[in-house]
Amino acid sequence: MPKVFEKKELIKKSENFSEWYTDVILKAKLADYAPVRGCMVFRPYGFAIWESIQKHLNSMIEKAGVKNAYFPLFIPYSFLKKEKKHIKGFSPELAVVTHGGGKELKEPLVVRPTSETIMYAMFAKWIKSWRDLPLLINQWCNVVRWEKRTYLFLRTMEFLWQEGHTCHATKAKAKKEALRALKMYQEFDEKFLAIPVISGKKSESEKFPGALNTYTLEGLMPDGKVLQCGTSHELGQNFSKPFEIKFQDKRKKSKYVWQTCWGMSTRIVGALIMTHGDDAGLILPPKIAPIQVVIIPIFGKGATQNKKILNLSSKIKEDLENSGIKVTLDERKQYTPGWKFNEWELKGVPLRIEIGQEEVNKNYLTVVRRDNGQKSKVKSQRSKMQIKIQKLLDEIQVNLYKKAEKFLKENTHKVEDYGEFKKIMKEKRGFIWAFWCQNPKCEAKIKEETKATTRLLPLRARKQSGKCIFCGKKAEYLWLFGQAY
Amino acid sequence: MPKVFEKKELIKKSENFSEWYTDVILKAKLADYAPVRGCMVFRPYGFAIWESIQKHLNSMIEKAGVKNAYFPLFIPYSFLKKEKKHIKGFSPELAVVTHGGGKELKEPLVVRPTSETIMYAMFAKWIKSWRDLPLLINQWCNVVRWEKRTYLFLRTMEFLWQEGHTCHATKAKAKKEALRALKMYQEFDEKFLAIPVISGKKSESEKFPGALNTYTLEGLMPDGKVLQCGTSHELGQNFSKPFEIKFQDKRKKSKYVWQTCWGMSTRIVGALIMTHGDDAGLILPPKIAPIQVVIIPIFGKGATQNKKILNLSSKIKEDLENSGIKVTLDERKQYTPGWKFNEWELKGVPLRIEIGQEEVNKNYLTVVRRDNGQKSKVKSQRSKMQIKIQKLLDEIQVNLYKKAEKFLKENTHKVEDYGEFKKIMKEKRGFIWAFWCQNPKCEAKIKEETKATTRLLPLRARKQSGKCIFCGKKAEYLWLFGQAY
Repeated sequence: MPKVFEKKELIKKSENFSEWYTDVILKAKLADYAPVRGCMVFRPYGFAIWESIQKHLNSMIEKAGVKNAYFPLFIPYSFLKKEKKHIKGFSPELAVVTHGGGKELKEPLVVRPTSETIMYAMFAKWIKSWRDLPLLINQWCNVVRWEKRTYLFLRTMEFLWQEGHTCHATKAKAKKEALRALKMYQEFDEKFLAIPVISGKKSESEKFPGALNTYTLEGLMPDGKVLQCGTSHELGQNFSKPFEIKFQDKRKKSKYVWQTCWGMSTRIVGALIMTHGDDAGLILPPKIAPIQVVIIPIFGKGATQNKKILNLSSKIKEDLENSGIKVTLDERKQYTPGWKFNEWELKGVPLRIEIGQEEVNKNYLTVVRRDNGQKSKVKSQRSKMQIKIQKLLDEIQVNLYKKAEKFLKENTHKVEDYGEFKKIMKEKRGFIWAFWCQNPKCEAKIKEETKATTRLLPLRARKQSGKCIFCGKKAEYLWLFGQAY
Repeated sequence: MPKVFEKKELIKKSENFSEWYTDVILKAKLADYAPVRGCMVFRPYGFAIWESIQKHLNSMIEKAGVKNAYFPLFIPYSFLKKEKKHIKGFSPELAVVTHGGGKELKEPLVVRPTSETIMYAMFAKWIKSWRDLPLLINQWCNVVRWEKRTYLFLRTMEFLWQEGHTCHATKAKAKKEALRALKMYQEFDEKFLAIPVISGKKSESEKFPGALNTYTLEGLMPDGKVLQCGTSHELGQNFSKPFEIKFQDKRKKSKYVWQTCWGMSTRIVGALIMTHGDDAGLILPPKIAPIQVVIIPIFGKGATQNKKILNLSSKIKEDLENSGIKVTLDERKQYTPGWKFNEWELKGVPLRIEIGQEEVNKNYLTVVRRDNGQKSKVKSQRSKMQIKIQKLLDEIQVNLYKKAEKFLKENTHKVEDYGEFKKIMKEKRGFIWAFWCQNPKCEAKIKEETKATTRLLPLRARKQSGKCIFCGKKAEYLWLFGQAY
């Protein structure tokens, strides 16, 4: 048997969160730094997580009647300039193609940072009548926003995402669609990723460049910082007017459409890693894990006995696959069981099944949960085993959500004193509910002094009488504050 | 009821093939011209065909043990220069980013025309030992090769594809993988797309820039021109040497890996459209069609009767969906049945089910095949109906392949006289088998005079004694010639 490789130990999450984050990504082979500054490579295991996210989210998008399409990577610079806030927002982040086919271009092309302008030029061509509405389009693609520093998954020059873009006959219908998308993301975050989020509306300064209203979902990471977990925008007629997206209504009157857009990106993989992982590595929620169960045969010295162990392992694998569970059988001979335990723990596989001589002789499986290390014996008889394993996976999914929800609750504070606000943001961070007078100057000052920004105002916020946490003037609503990633 | 839209008639395939091609794409809403020269937009129906191709091909790739990953869009210009033939081949087609984040870049970045160089820089980092081999990676992505003229699907500046890249310990293993990929594509072309292809090896001048050997599949289009339908390459050590992709073998000796790459792109959608369509529009093979069956209720004047018609239509839809068939029920009231027939014929849906009063009363469905217009009655009783519809879909799949195969055979000629060769290539084109001495000068002259190039030499070509079609000198093998798209 070849000698077992040495494995350098993982940095502990409990000791150094941000170093653990990068370390676990590299060691679990989720991703790697690319030779181009600001870019990353999605390695197969990391990409499989994204594919799993795509699969589930795409089916939710499809169910809402939204159709996938694909628009060009390159956008003429002049298109981006048509909506003033939009170009202002994206201008510092653009990658620009100036040469093509060996010649300098007359008009430079921008590599899409987002696709509003190129899509809407086409929508204007396609939409003629009320019969063409609503137009519901989604695109899975790569986008580029210039970055110098790479923070794997969370901040990269190129990232992958989906962007939904819809056109409607009325403002009310557009708003409904924007809120539908928000709800869809919330369901996805909570049910699939097991990440609890708070939903609401962005302040003026935090809105998407060109939007009328931006809705957002915000999740709290273990270091007390906040990560956006999906966002949707009411664009109003801000784009339909410059792009001339008009339709003839039932009374033959020409009108501009009302638009929305909404997106989720590979940043969410970062949230997934941060939220659930521990000192031993990743912990993936079963519903999103590319491998839900790993079977590790514990070979002994007898060849006949080893054959029985492998046979039972293969049978269990088949039985689980037949009940729709994603299983890997790690029968590699060059690694010891202990090495394999570490490896699959590092990779966050929710359940491990151990099968050795004892298990074969007594017809049971030893099953170990990744989330809490609990070991149990499961009878190896097919149908009961299938049900029990599925039940364990469901329990892990729920447990991960509950753990994250507990953390979120424990780290959310209602604060009325700015001194306390500053202290919390300096020491442990987290979410803070505080009154804000909605003056952008107070918001900017708070950011400057505490790094915390307004994250959202809940959709059905209760009007109260309070005092702005910063200036002390009259304030009617509690806003959610936090330090954004 | 709103008035029925006028629909401009489709250009006839039998009268003007190339105009029909563009016309059917635009009218069936598969794609549209983008505002950027050379680019196109994949509209939902066209993109659904590509998604269907992706789904089936991806599962074949997965079964071969190849893992999906994602590498950066941008490649440093210096990387491309590492393999001399590679940069020479791609240099005229590059799109170059010179500015990012508002500043001029020190080293320009190339938008990937293909990903060898960026992937292989990473492979060099990941591969250390024989245990890391084979490395089998695939990527679904967009690539850019500069084009001024758009020919929808067939020739666009940006296109979508998959590119497989593998590393092996020996030359023999790499060759085996390249041939496996070729066989996979052939199976996919023939079984899913119903496009018959001829397989073989490229001549020196037609090889991929940087390859040792290029293998190809060539399909014959209705206008007698030839379209590549999948390609795979043995790269030898041409890239592993400049990129230093080395591994330690079992005897601890350091060796360069042997590599392959292989790809299929959205051009294949063009082949699909051209091969099967007719004067009425597209004809999609059932195995790849996003919609396999369309149900059209034929409403009369009685409300009760119409309700029964709609009920039966919905029931049939559900029954078919339950047996895994992709169905659409077109219950729109603003269009007449005749208008709908035309619309779904244009869109190439393989089977149409008509349900009117007669059908409801007598418990049967009227079923019309898109490929040959045959009408039949199918009992509406569930299980029998499901089986019969699936059988019809299978028959259509086979029939489309046979029709295309017949065309290919009828338009393939063995030619020994250069005069005849020229005549055929001028008049009706098609495939020509002819002896060629393998002197690149003859190949170049033939291309100049007839627009035909060598397409391939079959893998197990029989050695014969013949005379070169061009120079008359000794030639041992029959090569396949044709005018490439």
